[in-house]
Amino acid sequence: MADLIASLRAGLPAGAVLTDPDVTVSYARDMASFCAAGRPAAVVLPRTVEQVQHVMRTATELRVPVVPQGARTGLSGAANASDGCIVLSLVKMDRVLEINAVDRIAVVEPGVVNATLSRAVLEQGLYYPPDPSSWEQCTIGGNIGTASGGLCCVKYGVTAEYVLGLDVVLADGRLLSTGRRTAKGVAGYDLTRLFVGSEGSLGVVVKAVLALRPAPPEQLVLAAEFPSSAAACEAICRIMERGHAPALLELMDRTCVRAVNDLTGMGLPESTEALLLAAFDTPDPAADLAAVATVCTEAGATEVVPADDAAESEMLLKARRTTLTALEALSSATMIDDVCVPRSRLAEMIDGTAAIADKYRLTIGVVAHAGDGNTHPTVCFDAADPDESRRARESFDEIMALGLELGGTITGEHGVGVLKKEWLARELGPVALELQRGIKQVFDPLGLLNPGKVF
Amino acid sequence: MADLIASLRAGLPAGAVLTDPDVTVSYARDMASFCAAGRPAAVVLPRTVEQVQHVMRTATELRVPVVPQGARTGLSGAANASDGCIVLSLVKMDRVLEINAVDRIAVVEPGVVNATLSRAVLEQGLYYPPDPSSWEQCTIGGNIGTASGGLCCVKYGVTAEYVLGLDVVLADGRLLSTGRRTAKGVAGYDLTRLFVGSEGSLGVVVKAVLALRPAPPEQLVLAAEFPSSAAACEAICRIMERGHAPALLELMDRTCVRAVNDLTGMGLPESTEALLLAAFDTPDPAADLAAVATVCTEAGATEVVPADDAAESEMLLKARRTTLTALEALSSATMIDDVCVPRSRLAEMIDGTAAIADKYRLTIGVVAHAGDGNTHPTVCFDAADPDESRRARESFDEIMALGLELGGTITGEHGVGVLKKEWLARELGPVALELQRGIKQVFDPLGLLNPGKVF
Repeated sequence: MADLIASLRAGLPAGAVLTDPDVTVSYARDMASFCAAGRPAAVVLPRTVEQVQHVMRTATELRVPVVPQGARTGLSGAANASDGCIVLSLVKMDRVLEINAVDRIAVVEPGVVNATLSRAVLEQGLYYPPDPSSWEQCTIGGNIGTASGGLCCVKYGVTAEYVLGLDVVLADGRLLSTGRRTAKGVAGYDLTRLFVGSEGSLGVVVKAVLALRPAPPEQLVLAAEFPSSAAACEAICRIMERGHAPALLELMDRTCVRAVNDLTGMGLPESTEALLLAAFDTPDPAADLAAVATVCTEAGATEVVPADDAAESEMLLKARRTTLTALEALSSATMIDDVCVPRSRLAEMIDGTAAIADKYRLTIGVVAHAGDGNTHPTVCFDAADPDESRRARESFDEIMALGLELGGTITGEHGVGVLKKEWLARELGPVALELQRGIKQVFDPLGLLNPGKVF
Repeated sequence: MADLIASLRAGLPAGAVLTDPDVTVSYARDMASFCAAGRPAAVVLPRTVEQVQHVMRTATELRVPVVPQGARTGLSGAANASDGCIVLSLVKMDRVLEINAVDRIAVVEPGVVNATLSRAVLEQGLYYPPDPSSWEQCTIGGNIGTASGGLCCVKYGVTAEYVLGLDVVLADGRLLSTGRRTAKGVAGYDLTRLFVGSEGSLGVVVKAVLALRPAPPEQLVLAAEFPSSAAACEAICRIMERGHAPALLELMDRTCVRAVNDLTGMGLPESTEALLLAAFDTPDPAADLAAVATVCTEAGATEVVPADDAAESEMLLKARRTTLTALEALSSATMIDDVCVPRSRLAEMIDGTAAIADKYRLTIGVVAHAGDGNTHPTVCFDAADPDESRRARESFDEIMALGLELGGTITGEHGVGVLKKEWLARELGPVALELQRGIKQVFDPLGLLNPGKVF
């Protein structure tokens, strides 16, 4: 241990190696409930690629596990420390190195906060779409590790679609460059994409080339109230089937609506069973909203309110963005699930989740990136009550089982981490699991990178 | 050999195992020049997943190499037979299994021809964008193996972005399912993407879940004549910088324009040094064309001709689509390069290629997916003249060297195959190459799948 700290300090500036347990404990876990976290031997905060290489060389030499970390806003325990590990926090590597409007790319260090990058490119008329709920805190490196989604995915896709190339420090400290700065490229296997969503288990991302888009027109939002989630899902299916391209298509159930009202006093309509939010950033968003309003009414919406301007739109989106916080305020603990199903099966997923809530006598609020079929059933429970905690965990698992039954996946955008390891094995099956472990072995033969995560 | 044929026939229907050398020789090579091709021991044409599994189990048992094959329209020799191999042609597995407008997906077998799928989904108001020049012949399985591009990539991206999930028969005959039917999903490493562009070296794709989009409005095309490629590239950079979203942005140099006139008598303007084609499939394409026309004029275009209707647009596109055939008619042989550079470096690439043509005293026509920075310099030469053939090969290599120097890649969309193996090693460097070989070893420990290709 003394060896480890001395070796780390030999290649890092003063202040970049933290060992005080009162400090390091604050780096021990991300935002997931029900996930074990150990006590790190040290937290390191490198500022350069060479320093990251030094950390990995030291770890390899001394056979010490390393847990790469961004802003710890993850929801699956992927960034949780293990006992005696080095927590490798990339938050100090936070420079935007380049923004190029002709090539439509940005080159960034991993610790850049998502919102910082988004605002920087917007100033040049460009757009970096991925927008996880935690975008004001979360880092691009963390987004890459988790393959994060967000609200805009229904039109613009997820983080994976914006990562063109990476610099990665490997487990043994060697530096790997993958991918490209070009719009296209098919030279060899796609290692870039392999790192996206690998949750720090294959290497440490130290630089990323990201694709950008032209900034779209300002979006307009419509809210529609439905008497049942089935009716809302019917509207969602018709909107997509008819070829509309909403920039956002979100669903909040009654539990979510009431929780938001309780927290914010926003006065959302509490009589509704399902509130649908649709946004368009097209050249004529008002026309698109009108068309979607008709679809909603045909599907049984009891009220449809198109925003007239950006301010009204922002107000409606605020309700959506506040939902998780509002659900968290309902009880001492929450577990957020992340099941994604084909959107044609969304109604079954939501009704099935309601049945699971009944069965386990729990409050489960459902908020969904409905256009993607990506639901976030949020189990609210009293962590001090062992029986309720057990029921919460069981309901959480049953929701994933339902997702798989409907042809879905256990995680649309939050990742596997510690929380869903057993479920990953169930989703992938033995053949895929064996191959994935084989790949891990190629990149990290000593098993030092984020051990115990993913699988 | 007799053993092999008997074993193959034991699990395949009569007629699905071809051994007559006069027949099998016609499966020996794709459309690349300068690539060695061997004589297959047999060509098999399975119709079911089980039959493919039987072929791979037999190959593993008898240690016989297997070359998976689609329509053999590839341009890098990736589908070329090796001596004594089994050519595994997937062209009889050609069913479109499902088209789902709500989930915006199609499920297909690998032998479906690209144009067949594109037309089938269009009938339901949907769009499968990837459109390689060979789209009337090439198969989806081949497109996946090569990670093919096409004309529309500047707006809609390449094949990789449309592959959500795969069924793959592994080297030992086991069946692997990867990915998903859902819009999002991050469960484990992205094996789907690893297969895309792997040129049959990791497994045999037997089913694919593909993402679809709503069919866009009909596109309108504009043609602009420039006095230099530098001026045309200036226009391209400004079009992209200002946030326009062309569905196509193509460049033909004077050699291409003249070759097309020679072949078709189309009467394109032969005085031009560079002809730029831009298309928009936006809600108001005429407005977009007008804006782009202004940009072209500012950049020095001597004439700008926006098409008034679909017929005129189609005529302009026909010139572009005929280019490779027209260049092939100029000489006994051609070699098509596929270098992609950042679009900000496109002018340097094109001028550099002209200098290389001068140096080697060769005709090299340049046609480019200019919006992507993806150039196809096409070296025209007399294959019967050894000196000219040598110069052709050297100029081809020098073009790739220039591409790498400009921050580009040796292949934007044609793949590595046999043709660019040495260049792949140069582009990737030793660390990436070692990891790629490690991955190959995980999937194909006996080295039976398409040996001698990629690396």
